[in-house]
Amino acid sequence: MKQAHALHRGPNDPGLANPSRRSILLGSAGAMAAVTLLGFTPLAKASEPKSLPDFAAWKDRNALFVHSANTMETQRGAIGNGVITPSNRLFVRNNLPAPPASITDNPDAWKVKIEGVKNPRTLTVGELKTMGVTTVASVLQCSGNGRAFFPHGASGTQWSVGAAGCVMWTGVPLKSVVEALGGLAEGARYITATGGEALPEGLDPKSIMVERSVPTRALETGLLAWEMNDEPLTHTHGGPLRMVVPGYYGVNNVKYVKNIAFTENQTDAKIQASGYRVRDVGKKGSPDQPSMWEMNVKSWVTAPLESGRSGRNMIYGVAFGGTVALAKIEVSTDGGKNWKPARFLGPDLGPYAWRPFVIAADLSAGEHRIVSRATDTEGHTQPEGRIENERGYGHNGWSDHGVSVTIS
Amino acid sequence: MKQAHALHRGPNDPGLANPSRRSILLGSAGAMAAVTLLGFTPLAKASEPKSLPDFAAWKDRNALFVHSANTMETQRGAIGNGVITPSNRLFVRNNLPAPPASITDNPDAWKVKIEGVKNPRTLTVGELKTMGVTTVASVLQCSGNGRAFFPHGASGTQWSVGAAGCVMWTGVPLKSVVEALGGLAEGARYITATGGEALPEGLDPKSIMVERSVPTRALETGLLAWEMNDEPLTHTHGGPLRMVVPGYYGVNNVKYVKNIAFTENQTDAKIQASGYRVRDVGKKGSPDQPSMWEMNVKSWVTAPLESGRSGRNMIYGVAFGGTVALAKIEVSTDGGKNWKPARFLGPDLGPYAWRPFVIAADLSAGEHRIVSRATDTEGHTQPEGRIENERGYGHNGWSDHGVSVTIS
Repeated sequence: MKQAHALHRGPNDPGLANPSRRSILLGSAGAMAAVTLLGFTPLAKASEPKSLPDFAAWKDRNALFVHSANTMETQRGAIGNGVITPSNRLFVRNNLPAPPASITDNPDAWKVKIEGVKNPRTLTVGELKTMGVTTVASVLQCSGNGRAFFPHGASGTQWSVGAAGCVMWTGVPLKSVVEALGGLAEGARYITATGGEALPEGLDPKSIMVERSVPTRALETGLLAWEMNDEPLTHTHGGPLRMVVPGYYGVNNVKYVKNIAFTENQTDAKIQASGYRVRDVGKKGSPDQPSMWEMNVKSWVTAPLESGRSGRNMIYGVAFGGTVALAKIEVSTDGGKNWKPARFLGPDLGPYAWRPFVIAADLSAGEHRIVSRATDTEGHTQPEGRIENERGYGHNGWSDHGVSVTIS
Repeated sequence: MKQAHALHRGPNDPGLANPSRRSILLGSAGAMAAVTLLGFTPLAKASEPKSLPDFAAWKDRNALFVHSANTMETQRGAIGNGVITPSNRLFVRNNLPAPPASITDNPDAWKVKIEGVKNPRTLTVGELKTMGVTTVASVLQCSGNGRAFFPHGASGTQWSVGAAGCVMWTGVPLKSVVEALGGLAEGARYITATGGEALPEGLDPKSIMVERSVPTRALETGLLAWEMNDEPLTHTHGGPLRMVVPGYYGVNNVKYVKNIAFTENQTDAKIQASGYRVRDVGKKGSPDQPSMWEMNVKSWVTAPLESGRSGRNMIYGVAFGGTVALAKIEVSTDGGKNWKPARFLGPDLGPYAWRPFVIAADLSAGEHRIVSRATDTEGHTQPEGRIENERGYGHNGWSDHGVSVTIS
């Protein structure tokens, strides 16, 4: 049963057991290079419980599925009902091995070059800290969250619902930086951010580097963040400095950001040009396909997950609208035949945050399929099904995301 | 210098060096009994660094001053700029030794008796969890926060600014419980909550028990909480179940709550009858004096604390209005001669939460006295000075709460 698989899935990640799939994820690097980069041998370890990698050793192991050395997922039962995801429960997904922890020893000395403005400059984090500050709550979600539900076996980490969390980001508004540097250069249409990971030798840098472009409309809300959840940003999550684009998929929130360029065109790095592109199953990625930018409206149930007692039960979940605030959340306990409005729980942290929800339901003995369906203020509602696509991106269909619960 | 004392204060707590003061705090118990209850010998240990007591061993020692086995204060520099205080940095203040940690082993089995309603009942936490749920962000602050600033040497823990934090509480609205039990009995004017601590033998229970009454107007917002910051409530902070009255001083948020009674009169327990009463210096507490219920408007600076470089500096702090939302926050860098409006930072979590604030200031070399002054939506503004009172309660004067910073 699909649902049971998603809930009880052990550390055996089908996406890792097949090196040829992994090689796609990593671009033109061969399968063995990919294995080396990730620091372990997937075939050998696929069936063993994995411990947390060093760069994320401070995380709550019991709250996470460890898919690989660079991919850890929050378990559905550990998502909780809170407006903010505790840092030690937040999922982790790095496209390259993280730089050493020492890069956060002196965060204020980290440098970022700003290009494509009237007065280009290299700024330290210490300097950025005097240029302005904002704090925004935003859902961080991997483009492939929900990939495990695709029946065609989309390659990549087999995320269920837990490649997402809602955290507070504190940093300087990117707009303030641009204003301080004289404004945008002419013709700038994209914000192109480059990560500071060390690139492996012997590979074309463009095939492996983390460099993402987002449209300049993101300048209204983007920030360069040095804190997450009111603590200095860890190197696990991109410290000393991370590009944060509220409401955009995770990959656009470039870690260890060392360069911000306002550019006429999108970068030709593979992660942008053919990676993170939505296309039909079986097709290759290319620049003419939609890029994974703004997130869509989505929700899922977080409790109960497996069983309950007959009578009054409280059903909990989380919902978010991407870059658009939520209008409503509905819950069905009969697989989507009948829906009732649920209630948001706790304070509203703004349009980019998720909102926990709750509804009391009288459940009779037997099996119940509990599903949730969110609608944003622009009228977008989660669809019932999947939009089938090669890499399993952007899944927000309510049916797959429900839970089957036995009431006794 | 007063300020330096407050900032750099070591674990030597003047309030603890004098057993006769401590005996006042604990009521009619003699000095030696008080020492025994607190589990250490203050005179012997007054000048040694204290380690965290067992019941709070999970706390971040570096973020806290440990005043005693039952009193730990968040350091001003560890308050941060966040809308929520991380649990491991939150201050601790128990009036009695905490029950063993095992009381949270099976939180759903904890029982609370509800009296003074049409249909009195004893309910388990498991039952409460099906009766309703709410999540509210609220400042938790000890009545004596700021006591260290009183020149007359008010007895009790010498809190500076850190006996306060803002946390999320999740539990059932007390109103929902009352409605489920048929409504209030006639004549109910107070909500009287009793803590579940074991009482020491040989003392009059009324002299030592934690039992507090608040007016029934608190029924509109009060809750019985089983979670703090989206995690099961620890026994350190009152788990399995705590009475929470948003916007009220800490003592009213009774830990390990085992009894809620809607009563015609306030309890005659000493902690209510003569404890936590505002009176002139030198006077004894009595029921005709104001009780420490709703908190008043308050703020303080959290950064910079000691030094800075000349030029543009970001000044941070926190502000809250008790039970009333904030209207504005102002900052002065010249000890209160000139004021400028600061900006609230991050999402607004509602009227009971605190709001971090920030302002950019150009500071020249030399000494600066940085102070902040909050005003609530009902027009209450922090006063400049103290309202002198015997126990040093409710201090919200802006002058004492400022910081002296050397800019070079």
